[in-house]
Amino acid sequence: MRLPKYFRVKNEILSLIAGLGPGTAVPTERELAERFSTSRTTVRQALTELVIDGRLERTQGRGTFIAQPRLMQVRQLTSFSQDTSDEGRRPGSVVLSIDVRPADTALATHLGVAPGAAVHRVERIRTVADEPIAHEVAHLPGPLPDLAAELALRGSLYRTLREAYGIDLAAVEDLVETTLADPVQAARLEVDPGLPLLLVHRTGWDDAGRVVEWTESVFRGDRFRFVARSRPDRASAGTATSTPG
Amino acid sequence: MRLPKYFRVKNEILSLIAGLGPGTAVPTERELAERFSTSRTTVRQALTELVIDGRLERTQGRGTFIAQPRLMQVRQLTSFSQDTSDEGRRPGSVVLSIDVRPADTALATHLGVAPGAAVHRVERIRTVADEPIAHEVAHLPGPLPDLAAELALRGSLYRTLREAYGIDLAAVEDLVETTLADPVQAARLEVDPGLPLLLVHRTGWDDAGRVVEWTESVFRGDRFRFVARSRPDRASAGTATSTPG
Repeated sequence: MRLPKYFRVKNEILSLIAGLGPGTAVPTERELAERFSTSRTTVRQALTELVIDGRLERTQGRGTFIAQPRLMQVRQLTSFSQDTSDEGRRPGSVVLSIDVRPADTALATHLGVAPGAAVHRVERIRTVADEPIAHEVAHLPGPLPDLAAELALRGSLYRTLREAYGIDLAAVEDLVETTLADPVQAARLEVDPGLPLLLVHRTGWDDAGRVVEWTESVFRGDRFRFVARSRPDRASAGTATSTPG
Repeated sequence: MRLPKYFRVKNEILSLIAGLGPGTAVPTERELAERFSTSRTTVRQALTELVIDGRLERTQGRGTFIAQPRLMQVRQLTSFSQDTSDEGRRPGSVVLSIDVRPADTALATHLGVAPGAAVHRVERIRTVADEPIAHEVAHLPGPLPDLAAELALRGSLYRTLREAYGIDLAAVEDLVETTLADPVQAARLEVDPGLPLLLVHRTGWDDAGRVVEWTESVFRGDRFRFVARSRPDRASAGTATSTPG
């Protein structure tokens, strides 16, 4: 099969940057176009894909650089705060809103509560080294008095649930899919619209099998990986329909 | 914030198609452009994103239709064959090649074998109802006599490992990230280059903690979700660096 020109240029750029460390500047579009005897338009398309792939990053007015390796997140029973600090990165959150709303039918089904039941809604931007990396809306059923204050004290939502309310996460299910950043998401995460994102829906259960969390998150696809580990669970192995808890 | 025109049109189309079943035809670009008093270019951009999102599908020369819901895959200790047939879909595989190659340094590290060790490489296209849905390259260490014949008998690789070689998968780790379909991948999966894909790297261990599989797969992001379930594992909970096995 005949490969498009931009794709061959992309592979040539990959060879060119192999082994260079994060932060290293790559040649300008003009220089690359000369080097590979092609147009700047073709070089630009190759560079754009390498940015989306998380291999390069562009800084307005400064140029294009080798990107940091993708962040990694262990999405088992640990939290974002735990995952990122274990990697030596500085996790943070910006709370956009915390309020209580009546569950609509869909949310009530996810949480296993009656439609109209009061549910806490916690909307946050997750950051790593002050860079916005994810947008997250957590839905938490049941009474959680002074949640805003308890969360502000601790930063981590899982730690708050455990320490302030005695709620332990015993099992989770994550659904992971790709989506494209719409203009609202792009503005929140400071990326271009159309960037692929990882969309994650998490359901969390306590020891008694009650749903304690239903959360929708979008992570920057150029910066994140999702990691899932599993060990044998002989009771439910082989059944795709078993429900944790 | 002021939303781009195509994004508002996209949301209007979503409202228009809400509740319509898979396979229903949507109006033509021209009709939609008239209805929303906008250009066909704007409508086309909105439709393209809805196709990438897996909400619509285009058939060359026939038009645009409401898409089937995304396939779902349980990626715990079950197999692709198991997952899809549990959902009442007909799974299949096209074997592209099966051979034995010496492990390079990177692969040897993944598999925990010496560089140069003989490793089976099984390259397949996974299908559902004859539609290509994923491309997969599995690397399997150790002697697996007559692998091609044993696999042809059974179809499922996990079933083959278990029944023909007594190898039971005891733990897995999946790394999930987004990538854009390059021209080669796009041709294999019969999609447009640039479509977001789910790139999954799986490591599988047996009871004794030996690596029995290292597999790279790409799944069509418009058709697939990744599902990860986990239950408490008190021994390693809270440590992000523990290794299964």
